[in-house]
Amino acid sequence: MADGRPKWLDNKIRGILLDISGVLYNSGQGGGTVIPGSVDAVQRLKSSGLNVRFCTNETQCTREELVAKLNKFGYKLLSSELFAPAPATRFILEKRNLRPHLLIHPGGRPDFDGINCNDPNCVVIGDAAQEFYYENMNKAFRALLEMKDPILFSMGYGKYYKTDGELVLDVGPFTKALEYACDVKAEIVGKPSKTFFMTALEAMGVSTEEALMIGDDILNDVGGAQACGIRGVQVRTGKFRISDENHPTVKPDAFVDNLAQAVDLILKYNT
Amino acid sequence: MADGRPKWLDNKIRGILLDISGVLYNSGQGGGTVIPGSVDAVQRLKSSGLNVRFCTNETQCTREELVAKLNKFGYKLLSSELFAPAPATRFILEKRNLRPHLLIHPGGRPDFDGINCNDPNCVVIGDAAQEFYYENMNKAFRALLEMKDPILFSMGYGKYYKTDGELVLDVGPFTKALEYACDVKAEIVGKPSKTFFMTALEAMGVSTEEALMIGDDILNDVGGAQACGIRGVQVRTGKFRISDENHPTVKPDAFVDNLAQAVDLILKYNT
Repeated sequence: MADGRPKWLDNKIRGILLDISGVLYNSGQGGGTVIPGSVDAVQRLKSSGLNVRFCTNETQCTREELVAKLNKFGYKLLSSELFAPAPATRFILEKRNLRPHLLIHPGGRPDFDGINCNDPNCVVIGDAAQEFYYENMNKAFRALLEMKDPILFSMGYGKYYKTDGELVLDVGPFTKALEYACDVKAEIVGKPSKTFFMTALEAMGVSTEEALMIGDDILNDVGGAQACGIRGVQVRTGKFRISDENHPTVKPDAFVDNLAQAVDLILKYNT
Repeated sequence: MADGRPKWLDNKIRGILLDISGVLYNSGQGGGTVIPGSVDAVQRLKSSGLNVRFCTNETQCTREELVAKLNKFGYKLLSSELFAPAPATRFILEKRNLRPHLLIHPGGRPDFDGINCNDPNCVVIGDAAQEFYYENMNKAFRALLEMKDPILFSMGYGKYYKTDGELVLDVGPFTKALEYACDVKAEIVGKPSKTFFMTALEAMGVSTEEALMIGDDILNDVGGAQACGIRGVQVRTGKFRISDENHPTVKPDAFVDNLAQAVDLILKYNT
């Protein structure tokens, strides 16, 4: 570290995974607000020749809508660069010939268009927000209880996130509720599932040692990546809370104020 | 067993704890429906000189309203015979000088009348049913997250119950959701908490070896009682499901078709 290089940049990075909500923008009414410096930071990463992919647990809109929303802020994302739980779940449903009962946000419904939902033999839960009302929870619960071998897919496992400046419950707590009610363990699709991270790395053709994840969710972004052997960097934007600096189980490889600061350090020392 | 006495009646019983919903009546619109034979069975138990108390996790109405509702069916319950979570929770709040954020059913609100709910330093969750909508869950979540030392009281921990002939989620799954979101462990008031069972036994002046619990909830009635050293009998009414006969963790001391059958056996063999 004679040259000032931080320890987390000792090994050369070839591919970077970026979380979206809380790193590129803050969600909210009217499309949310961009996080200052992040548009330029992504551009600088890409221009430097580094591989970049975007890993999100967003399921309230389709992948195409999310890309369009981000590009309005000036990002130049391609659909193929974005990894989200709904297309991955759809792939699993089709491969295993499953018929889901969907407890998801209406905005994410088109990602499941054409899937047979009659006589369901699994439940798919996503960040349904307002759709998490009592009778909807009961319907998913009864669907599971009626299955001989209940299968529950959870698109993410996050505890909470920030929207319109306020913390709100993510899909994870409602997944826990169904797991407890029905004595079933959910199969997680999305972060922090190892399969999800590895799919994104494979698309870049980089190994876990050559990769870095940057996110605002200490458990699902940072902890999830670290569990795969990928370095995890925690930004102090989005849902970050002071208490994350002393998290009981996850110790990020680094804390940075925001994506721009992370990129400054990467471009300076990743040589 | 030469006289046909079942093993669970080998030791003499002096006190009996009865669950209410699913044992005395099935809840539902217009006050629900009585379970055939149960009114007579309770009367026969009391006439035989046995101590009887009623242990419920009901929090959708006040204790007095529940007594009145049951007595319409012909039961002759007294408020003092009925143990319910709300009065017990109120006692704890007052003793520990706590100000609750209440996530409960409006029907149970009068049990907390006069309690200071400003600037809450704990959350109390009950079987809130329709009140378990997203924004209400978010309010309880944020209240906990803002506390330096979050305290969550859960009035019961049941997974589901039957109402209007349909299974619906009980408080337990929603408690699990908040526990997960906030990294907190709920203090359970009501079944299956040991304190709750022991308070009812103390009121009768009987020991755990002399007591028997009869209920339709294999985990909270039967398993909860057994964890205290009290015999637990499972009825095949209420929320009973065939799969309970092969429950992975709880083995009831006996299965009976209904309360009337349990009382027939008790009165015949408890000599």
